[in-house]
Amino acid sequence: MRDQFETDLQSVNDDLVEMTRLVGSAMSRATTALLDADLVLAESVITADEQVDDLQAGLEERALVLLARQAPVATDLRVLVAALRMSADLERMGDLARHIAKVARLRYPNSAIPPELRATILQMGQIAETLVMKTGSVIASRDIALVEELETDDDEMDQLHRSLFAKLLAPDWAHGVEGAIDITLCGRYYERYADHAVAVARRVVFLVTGERVGHGDPIPTQPAQGS
Amino acid sequence: MRDQFETDLQSVNDDLVEMTRLVGSAMSRATTALLDADLVLAESVITADEQVDDLQAGLEERALVLLARQAPVATDLRVLVAALRMSADLERMGDLARHIAKVARLRYPNSAIPPELRATILQMGQIAETLVMKTGSVIASRDIALVEELETDDDEMDQLHRSLFAKLLAPDWAHGVEGAIDITLCGRYYERYADHAVAVARRVVFLVTGERVGHGDPIPTQPAQGS
Repeated sequence: MRDQFETDLQSVNDDLVEMTRLVGSAMSRATTALLDADLVLAESVITADEQVDDLQAGLEERALVLLARQAPVATDLRVLVAALRMSADLERMGDLARHIAKVARLRYPNSAIPPELRATILQMGQIAETLVMKTGSVIASRDIALVEELETDDDEMDQLHRSLFAKLLAPDWAHGVEGAIDITLCGRYYERYADHAVAVARRVVFLVTGERVGHGDPIPTQPAQGS
Repeated sequence: MRDQFETDLQSVNDDLVEMTRLVGSAMSRATTALLDADLVLAESVITADEQVDDLQAGLEERALVLLARQAPVATDLRVLVAALRMSADLERMGDLARHIAKVARLRYPNSAIPPELRATILQMGQIAETLVMKTGSVIASRDIALVEELETDDDEMDQLHRSLFAKLLAPDWAHGVEGAIDITLCGRYYERYADHAVAVARRVVFLVTGERVGHGDPIPTQPAQGS
C-alpha cells in the first residue's frame, strides 16, 4: 500500500512537471506570436490552454482521492496540499500565456510590440521560459539550490518590466495610448507569470526545509527539524 | 470528537467570512484613497494587508492540522480543501486592493483618476464591494442563489472595464501615456478582484451541488447525488 501511495505521489509530481513544460511552451509560443504577429501560433496557444486546465482539474481530483483513501499525515500531507496550490499557480501561468496570445491576435496583422521594445519583450519571454524550466527542475529534483537562481531571474524580470514603463513614458514614445495599453498589459502578464513560477519553487523549498521564504530571503539549506 | 471537528470546520468558515470583510474594507478604502488622493488612507490599506496574509497563513496551518488529525473524507475533506483554495483567492484580493492603494500613493498629491473617469472607477469600486459582501454571504449561509447575482455583477464589472478602455482610446483623452498606464493597471486590478470573488463563490456552489459552474452556466439548485 505504501508503495502504491509513493507511486501515486510521484505521478502527481510528474503532472506538475508536465504542467511546467506545457505552460513554458505556451509562453514561448505566445512571445513569438506577439513579436511576429503570428495569428496561427496565437490561436494554437489559446486553444492549447485547455490541456493545462484539464491536467490541473485531474490533478486536483486525484489529490482529493489520495487524501481521502490514504489519510496521509506529516510530510505526505503537506506534499499533496502543496501540489494543489502549485497546480493552481501553474494553471494561472497558462492563463497568462493565453492572455499574451490574445493581445497578439487582437493586433493581427500588426504586431503589438513596436520595434524599439522588441528586444525587451524578447528578453522577458526568455526569462519567463528559463524560470519555468528551472521551476520544473526544482519540482522534479527537489534541488532547492536552483531557487536562488530563480529569485535572480525574477529580479531581472522586474527590472525589464520597469524599463518597459520608462520607454512608454519617454518623450519620444510614438505609439499612442493604444500601444501603451498593450505594453502595460503584456508587461504585467510576464511579470505575474514570473511571480507564479517563483511562488511554486518557494513551495518546494518549504516542503524540503520547512521554512517559508519571502523575496530576498536566503534559501535555507538545512532540512527542518522533525520533517 | 465529531462535535469538535464541526466546531473547527465552522471556525475555518468564519475565518473565510472575516477575510471577505477585511478585503472588502481594504477595497473600499483603496477606492476612496485613489479618488481623493488620500495618502493616509492609502498607507492604511497597504499596512493592513498583512492582517489578511496572517489570517490566510493561520487558516492554511489549521486546515493542515485538521486534515492530519481527523483524516476527513467525502464532503468534509472537500470543504477543507476548498477552504484552502478560497483563502488563497481572498488573500490575492487583498493584494489587489493594496496595488490600487499603491497607485494612489504613487500619484499623491494628485489623483490618478481624471475627473471624467471618477464615476466609472467609483462604480467599479462599489461593484467590487458588493461582490465581496455577497461572496461573504454565500460562504456564511451557503445560499447559492446569490451566486447568480454575483455573475451579473461581474458582467457589469467587465462592461465598466471595457468602458474605461473606450475612454482611454477616445480622441479627446488628455492625460497622456502616464494617465493611461495608471488607468489600465487599476482597471485590471478591479477586474481581477471581481474574478476572484466569483471564483470563491463558485467553489461554494461546487461544494453544495457537486457541479462545477463556469461563466454563464446556470447555477444548479439540486444537491449532487451521493454528496
